[in-house]
Amino acid sequence: MCRWLAYSGSPVLLTDLLYGSEHSLIVQSLHARLGNEETNGDGFGIGWYGEEEAPAVFRGIEPAWNDRNLRDLSRHIRSGLVFAHVRASTHAPVQLSNCHPFRHGSWLWMHNGLIHDFVHVKRDLVLEVDPTLYQEIEGSTDSEVFFYLALTLGLEDDPPGAVARAVGLIEAVGERHGVEVPLHMTVATTDGESIWGFRYASRGADQGSLFFSTDVTTLREQYPDNQMLKDASDEARLVVSEPLGSLAGAWNEVPPSSWGVVQPGDDELHGFEPIRPE
Amino acid sequence: MCRWLAYSGSPVLLTDLLYGSEHSLIVQSLHARLGNEETNGDGFGIGWYGEEEAPAVFRGIEPAWNDRNLRDLSRHIRSGLVFAHVRASTHAPVQLSNCHPFRHGSWLWMHNGLIHDFVHVKRDLVLEVDPTLYQEIEGSTDSEVFFYLALTLGLEDDPPGAVARAVGLIEAVGERHGVEVPLHMTVATTDGESIWGFRYASRGADQGSLFFSTDVTTLREQYPDNQMLKDASDEARLVVSEPLGSLAGAWNEVPPSSWGVVQPGDDELHGFEPIRPE
Amino acid sequence: MCRWLAYSGSPVLLTDLLYGSEHSLIVQSLHARLGNEETNGDGFGIGWYGEEEAPAVFRGIEPAWNDRNLRDLSRHIRSGLVFAHVRASTHAPVQLSNCHPFRHGSWLWMHNGLIHDFVHVKRDLVLEVDPTLYQEIEGSTDSEVFFYLALTLGLEDDPPGAVARAVGLIEAVGERHGVEVPLHMTVATTDGESIWGFRYASRGADQGSLFFSTDVTTLREQYPDNQMLKDASDEARLVVSEPLGSLAGAWNEVPPSSWGVVQPGDDELHGFEPIRPE
Amino acid sequence: MCRWLAYSGSPVLLTDLLYGSEHSLIVQSLHARLGNEETNGDGFGIGWYGEEEAPAVFRGIEPAWNDRNLRDLSRHIRSGLVFAHVRASTHAPVQLSNCHPFRHGSWLWMHNGLIHDFVHVKRDLVLEVDPTLYQEIEGSTDSEVFFYLALTLGLEDDPPGAVARAVGLIEAVGERHGVEVPLHMTVATTDGESIWGFRYASRGADQGSLFFSTDVTTLREQYPDNQMLKDASDEARLVVSEPLGSLAGAWNEVPPSSWGVVQPGDDELHGFEPIRPE
Repeated sequence: MCRWLAYSGSPVLLTDLLYGSEHSLIVQSLHARLGNEETNGDGFGIGWYGEEEAPAVFRGIEPAWNDRNLRDLSRHIRSGLVFAHVRASTHAPVQLSNCHPFRHGSWLWMHNGLIHDFVHVKRDLVLEVDPTLYQEIEGSTDSEVFFYLALTLGLEDDPPGAVARAVGLIEAVGERHGVEVPLHMTVATTDGESIWGFRYASRGADQGSLFFSTDVTTLREQYPDNQMLKDASDEARLVVSEPLGSLAGAWNEVPPSSWGVVQPGDDELHGFEPIRPE
Repeated sequence: MCRWLAYSGSPVLLTDLLYGSEHSLIVQSLHARLGNEETNGDGFGIGWYGEEEAPAVFRGIEPAWNDRNLRDLSRHIRSGLVFAHVRASTHAPVQLSNCHPFRHGSWLWMHNGLIHDFVHVKRDLVLEVDPTLYQEIEGSTDSEVFFYLALTLGLEDDPPGAVARAVGLIEAVGERHGVEVPLHMTVATTDGESIWGFRYASRGADQGSLFFSTDVTTLREQYPDNQMLKDASDEARLVVSEPLGSLAGAWNEVPPSSWGVVQPGDDELHGFEPIRPE
Repeated sequence: MCRWLAYSGSPVLLTDLLYGSEHSLIVQSLHARLGNEETNGDGFGIGWYGEEEAPAVFRGIEPAWNDRNLRDLSRHIRSGLVFAHVRASTHAPVQLSNCHPFRHGSWLWMHNGLIHDFVHVKRDLVLEVDPTLYQEIEGSTDSEVFFYLALTLGLEDDPPGAVARAVGLIEAVGERHGVEVPLHMTVATTDGESIWGFRYASRGADQGSLFFSTDVTTLREQYPDNQMLKDASDEARLVVSEPLGSLAGAWNEVPPSSWGVVQPGDDELHGFEPIRPE
Repeated sequence: MCRWLAYSGSPVLLTDLLYGSEHSLIVQSLHARLGNEETNGDGFGIGWYGEEEAPAVFRGIEPAWNDRNLRDLSRHIRSGLVFAHVRASTHAPVQLSNCHPFRHGSWLWMHNGLIHDFVHVKRDLVLEVDPTLYQEIEGSTDSEVFFYLALTLGLEDDPPGAVARAVGLIEAVGERHGVEVPLHMTVATTDGESIWGFRYASRGADQGSLFFSTDVTTLREQYPDNQMLKDASDEARLVVSEPLGSLAGAWNEVPPSSWGVVQPGDDELHGFEPIRPE
């Protein structure tokens, strides 16, 4: 399991976002509360939108809690759309190409959970990836293949539909291989403007936690000293696999089997259902 | 805080020693039970005696639990005297030169605990290191300076006396700087033949845990499937900061403020008292 | 391009093999003479046979010339069959899973050269890998896929035939994609007993260099101070992508388009010709 | 030896500065022309001024030429004062704390060259560092000790004088230890506003190369496609250990034994002479 955070709003310093709260993502890398694994020390990654249309990605194979480059960089990078991820490896080796977020063009993707029995279903899944996209796969994780399946199935045009089709495909292939619960997932993906978040697990299995922040005005009153909240605009939003603080009322749980989108205009929240391949 | 293990006996495979028990050192790197820090993910090191009089040292800056080189090497290295250490950094950066065990000539040294307020006492302590030895210091930890102080004060001739003098010096310097509890320590050191272990903290403070194994014959009966115990000779001994298994009776706690030696012939256990500089 | 070395004979210390000659492999990592790239600083790996039937592999992502673990380990590891490789990456990222030698069961494989336009032919090649073997692929290099193709096509039973079939397949796929010169290669592979070496390039292109040592008795006279040669048995052999010293007469060039085997009994040298898929 | 670059002017993208020229610093990491060592693959570092008064520093222990984080970050970081350094280690290990530029408060420092026989003079030099500053030393290089000597001797108030006194001290200590040529140096240091550059070697020894760019207007005409030059203001300046391109007339060599300052207002160039301790 892993822990992740997605932010959208007015530009904030990464240090305020990643380090500046009681139970920050960096604290979670050492002591997560809600995941299966308390320690998320198998590498990390951050992605943000800056000078180019394509986002920047900075990744490390050391635990996030003692990466000095991350600590230093985050004091000098300001962005209005940030993804951050700390990894607890299931099988795939700890190497930069296995660290989230993954990137394709102007899109980012990160995942908590796993495609079960990946070693047995991997080949069949990889065959479904569009041959042109296949060339870009660099690592050996289930999460990256999941991303490329979603891209193949239309992520750039219809994110919720593409993820539903990718999940349906993973479930169909898993079942063909006799995998009981093919998939656990919380997923965040973005095109640099909106953030889509998904919470789901196959066949009614327990689902990983997923939360989004209540409106910033309320939070700001509760944490008057928090610099990130001071800098964040009123419509700023956080989507996280685990709350960053303990205050009741600051975080809403995303219901099981649902997806939402944080976007310019009104946010949305819907039920999520996989679409099986015909 | 850190966790460590020292083995002396007939040659065993490192994999059996490091991975082959219920609560092995590698498991402790992720989930220690007795230390202040549950996670010891800030690098690791092993030292062993092999082809040369000087021991080999292999160190890594990644967490021990996912280091593939360590896993692989340990299946092919067999030794009769092994030190292993997993680190939880207090201040000093995670770099190879800060990973234990430290080596000088044919000696190894590892330490759990800390010289408190090291940043303020470091200069005065370093000044006490013999200028010729000073040249060898490569890292920035308190533990390495402690080792070089002990070397300066006669470690190679009289280990218990030299450690007592080094501790006395650290306490005197600490008090001069107003440090309340100058030192916490469990220490293991070896010349390739005997292993000396120390347990102590200044001014009656709580002391880090330290254990040694009961005789191998008993252990072998309790763990009939343990390959290391099968290979270990009857006089083999383990000294550890935390027991490797849960079975009652297999481990003896070293009493507070004491030192012992595992050696050819009878082992010894004595009270430990610092010797103040005159 | 990369540089590599394979040794077979009586057990020698790795330090003598890797560091103890004028133009050693470690020197070649910084200053190769014959390759396209002078610097081979993009990771390294060594494989050797020790305690188990399966070989040990130790790999690093730093340049070999300043890896302290390699320096230290090599002074304590003695083996009678050793592979060593320093990498100059063409495209694939510098990560442990992309460092040679690659291992499957008791086999090792290393490669200098490249499958040209790999990004375009990769998918078609990977599809030809046996699905059970496919699960083991961890990295993203052409060399590893080449190894798994050879394994799929019978490497364990008939190494020269399997490599010929793998090369034929790579050429057929490359040509289908309009690649002018599909493959450059010098390859070494071993089952722990014999070493097979190959030198070849598609369509008469220039071929990477490959040498084997003349008999040890002669070399020993020429280098009376060389510890490795003192330890090596008379039938010991070195196969290298570049000579380890400059003395004329010590090294025989393997002719273009040929393969040889160093084995118990008489060594062999034959012409190499790819076998096209039907 | 090492290679370095310092930039001052209107904000430019790091990617244009580090990668966007024929013989860029990243190219020099693999193939330097003027230094003693062609390969500068023993780590790297960049420092720049951004959100805070204190500069950001990003360092790596891999060769700069294949660091993907550096490549990615540099496309999203824009700054008007940048230091960049690629290292060829003489003795000190390759670890982040040994990578230039070094930082203290709002100052940066980088060095090409060495304090000769550092292992023997180190202790005497370190003793001269102000005890409060001593606490900040984290690495084991001569260059970092040089920086802290300069800080001790007034760098923040009078950079040329402080460096002259530090050099005088290094020479006095070196001579006391019988070192023939105590120091080789090109040095760059900055407070975030001005850049001071120094070129010197003890006792008339050969001096490392040092260049500064001619005025940007001329360069822009010579390289009409260079994005960095397009973005750079007319008063922008580059100080480099080796020219970034081959065009005659674009670079001025700093004369031996001199120092200069790039600053708001007119730049200056003076002779450099060490000041011996009394």
